[in-house]
Amino acid sequence: MSSTSSQAIVATAPDLENYTPGSNWSLQPISIPSQDKLADGEILVDMLATGICHTDILTTSVPGGTPGFPYPYVAGHEGSGYVRAIGPGVKKDIKVGDPVLLSFDSCGACGSCAAKHPAYCAHFFPLNIAATEGVFTNEDGEGVAGKFFGQSSFAKTSVVKEGSVLNVRDLGVGREELKLFAPLGCGIQTGAGAVLRVAKPVKEDRVMVLGLGGVGLSALMAAKMLGCEQIIGVDKVKSRIELAKTLGATHGLDTTGLDDLTTSFKEVAGGQGPTVIIDTTGHVPVIKAAYNSLASRGTFVFVGASLSPDFVLDIGITQHMMNGTRLLGCSEGDSFPEEFIPQLIKYYREGNLQLDKISKFYQVRCIPESLTWNGMRQANV
Amino acid sequence: MSSTSSQAIVATAPDLENYTPGSNWSLQPISIPSQDKLADGEILVDMLATGICHTDILTTSVPGGTPGFPYPYVAGHEGSGYVRAIGPGVKKDIKVGDPVLLSFDSCGACGSCAAKHPAYCAHFFPLNIAATEGVFTNEDGEGVAGKFFGQSSFAKTSVVKEGSVLNVRDLGVGREELKLFAPLGCGIQTGAGAVLRVAKPVKEDRVMVLGLGGVGLSALMAAKMLGCEQIIGVDKVKSRIELAKTLGATHGLDTTGLDDLTTSFKEVAGGQGPTVIIDTTGHVPVIKAAYNSLASRGTFVFVGASLSPDFVLDIGITQHMMNGTRLLGCSEGDSFPEEFIPQLIKYYREGNLQLDKISKFYQVRCIPESLTWNGMRQANV
Repeated sequence: MSSTSSQAIVATAPDLENYTPGSNWSLQPISIPSQDKLADGEILVDMLATGICHTDILTTSVPGGTPGFPYPYVAGHEGSGYVRAIGPGVKKDIKVGDPVLLSFDSCGACGSCAAKHPAYCAHFFPLNIAATEGVFTNEDGEGVAGKFFGQSSFAKTSVVKEGSVLNVRDLGVGREELKLFAPLGCGIQTGAGAVLRVAKPVKEDRVMVLGLGGVGLSALMAAKMLGCEQIIGVDKVKSRIELAKTLGATHGLDTTGLDDLTTSFKEVAGGQGPTVIIDTTGHVPVIKAAYNSLASRGTFVFVGASLSPDFVLDIGITQHMMNGTRLLGCSEGDSFPEEFIPQLIKYYREGNLQLDKISKFYQVRCIPESLTWNGMRQANV
Repeated sequence: MSSTSSQAIVATAPDLENYTPGSNWSLQPISIPSQDKLADGEILVDMLATGICHTDILTTSVPGGTPGFPYPYVAGHEGSGYVRAIGPGVKKDIKVGDPVLLSFDSCGACGSCAAKHPAYCAHFFPLNIAATEGVFTNEDGEGVAGKFFGQSSFAKTSVVKEGSVLNVRDLGVGREELKLFAPLGCGIQTGAGAVLRVAKPVKEDRVMVLGLGGVGLSALMAAKMLGCEQIIGVDKVKSRIELAKTLGATHGLDTTGLDDLTTSFKEVAGGQGPTVIIDTTGHVPVIKAAYNSLASRGTFVFVGASLSPDFVLDIGITQHMMNGTRLLGCSEGDSFPEEFIPQLIKYYREGNLQLDKISKFYQVRCIPESLTWNGMRQANV
C-alpha cells in the first residue's frame, strides 16, 4: 500500500474578483504517502488541532501561489497532534503515539540555527514558505503540495518535517492542553517573543500593542508578565479591546473614527508617546502614525507582514538618529521553540498566559466561516 | 567693566552661490560679558583647543541660520580649556583654573537625563542647536549669538553652560592631553559610543564602518577593542583607508568607481554581508546600499546626519521583519559624558584609542583651509 486516505483543507487559486478570506479553501479527501514511503526526516502526524494564522490567508491569497508553492496546496502551520509513523533518519527522540506541537522548520545547521535563532535560518524561505509539490494527491489524482512550514497542518493526517516537531511527551500534556497549545508554535510565540525576547521592556515602559488578535494579545500578556506599568491595547474592534483589558491592558484605544492617530497614540501614552510599540496589524497608515508617536529612545517592533509592494515605512534618518529610535524586525518572536515553547507552557500553567481566554474552537468544516470571527481561531482537525 | 575683549570665528549668512565650507567663517575681535555679568550656571572658559565637527559646517551652511539661531553666531562644540571665571548658581565642583572638556548641554532633569541618556534630553534642540542671541558683541556693536551646544568653542574665551562642562582636574590631564582630548565631547564619543554603547558587537561580528573621518575611525578603534574578528573600513579616500588599517581595520574598501555597492559590501564581508554597520557618511545612496547588504539579524546604526528633506531610508517592512534587522538611531554615541569620557581617556592612555594618530592641529587663522583636509581636524584657539 503506497498511500493512505486522509482529508485536508486544500487551497486553490483565488478568484480575486469574488475573493473573501477562505473562499478558495475547501475540505477534500486526499491521499497521503503510506508509512513505508516516507522520506528521510519525515513524520506522519495525526492532527488534533491547528491554529489558523493570518499567514495562511496571506499566502493563499496570491493569484499564482506563493513563489515555489503553486496551487493546489495544503496550508496550516500551527498544528498539534500525535505521531502516527516515523520515517527513516529521524534523529529526535520521537516515538509513535507521542504528543507533539508543530512549529516552523529550520535547517539546524546554519549560523542563525547554531546560535538558537532558527527563525532567521538561512533556509527559512525554501523550508517554510515555498514547499514540496506532490506530497498529497487529490481525488482527481492530481498532486497537492505540502510541508507548508514543514507541516501543512490543515490535513487530518499530514507529512511533517522533523525540524518542525516539538515532542511534549515529557511535559505531561494531555489531550485538552494539546488542543489549546496548537498555536504556540507560531502565533503565540510570535507575540510573546516580540516582547520577551526582542523588545524586552522594563517596568517603567509604556508598551503599546497595535492589533489585538492572537499575536497582539500574546504580546500584551507578556508585557503584563514583565510588570510594565502602562500597557495600551489598540484595535478597531470594541470586543477585542474589552478582552485585552481583562488580560492586562491598562488602557484601550479604539481607533474607529480617529483622524489623527499620532496625536491619539501620544495622548493615550501620557503625552510623550509609547516607549515600546509592537505592531501586529501590518497596516501601513497605523504603522506610520505609531512610528511618529514613539517617545525618545523608543523601540518599535515589526511583527505584522504583508506581501504588498507598498508595505514600506519611510524613515527620516536624522529624526531616527536624534531620537535614538530602535526599529526591530521580529519573525516568529525570535523563538527557539525547543526552549521557548516549554517556557510558554509553564507561563500558561501558572495562569500568566491565558490561552483559554483568547481561543475559540471550530469544527474543521466551519473554517471559512471562522475567518469572520474577530478573535483567535483554532480548528479541531 | 561690563565686557572683555576676545576673538572668535564668527559665522555669517552663507552666500550659497559661491559657498565652500568655512567660506562664511571669519576670525574677528568680539566682546564677551565680564565676569560679574555672567548669568546663572554660566562659566567663562579660556579655550585651549576645539575640534571642528561636520555639524559646525552643516549648521552654518543653512541660509537663514539654524532654527532659533540666526547669524551672526559662533559655532564650535568640541572645546577644551581652562576655567577663567564662574558665574552664580553653578553647582558642579569647579574652580578657576581647572582644566575642562566641553560636551553637549542637557537639562539634567528630564527622564532621559535621569536615566543617564542625556543625548536624548527632552530639551536637546533648544539647549544645543538653537542658541542664545547677543552672548557676544562684534566690533560694530552688533550682537553675536553664542552657547552653541552650550559652549560656542570657536571663541578664544567663551561663555559656557555648566551642563556642558566636564572637570578633568582629578584625572591628571596636562596641557598636551587637554588639547588632544578636545573632540572627546562630541566626535570621539559619537563614534566610540555607537559601537560600545549602542551596537555592542561581539567577537564573531563582521563590523563595517562607513566613512573614516574622526567619528568613523573612533568607531573602528572601539570595534577593535571589543576584539571583533572582521572590521571593514569603507571610504572613497585611499589615505583614510590606509590609516584605518593601522588602527584595526582588517579589511578596507575604496568605493571609488564601484557601481554595485550592495554586492561589494556583501563580498568584502565574506559573502553574507556585515552583521553590524555604522554609518557616519550621512549619504543616502551609501546608506541604502549598505542596509541592503546587511546579514540576517544584522544591526545598522545611524550616526551621520543631514538637514536635507531627502535624507530618508525606505524600509521594506516584511524584509526588515523576516531578516530580524535592527535599525538603531544614535546621537552623541548615547554618551553619558561624566562617565564615558573618563573611560575614553583611560582607553587612550592604555593605547587602545589612538587619538594622536587621527588628529591634526591647525592655527585658528587656518581653519577655513583645514576644512580641505581629509582627516580629523582640531584648532588651537
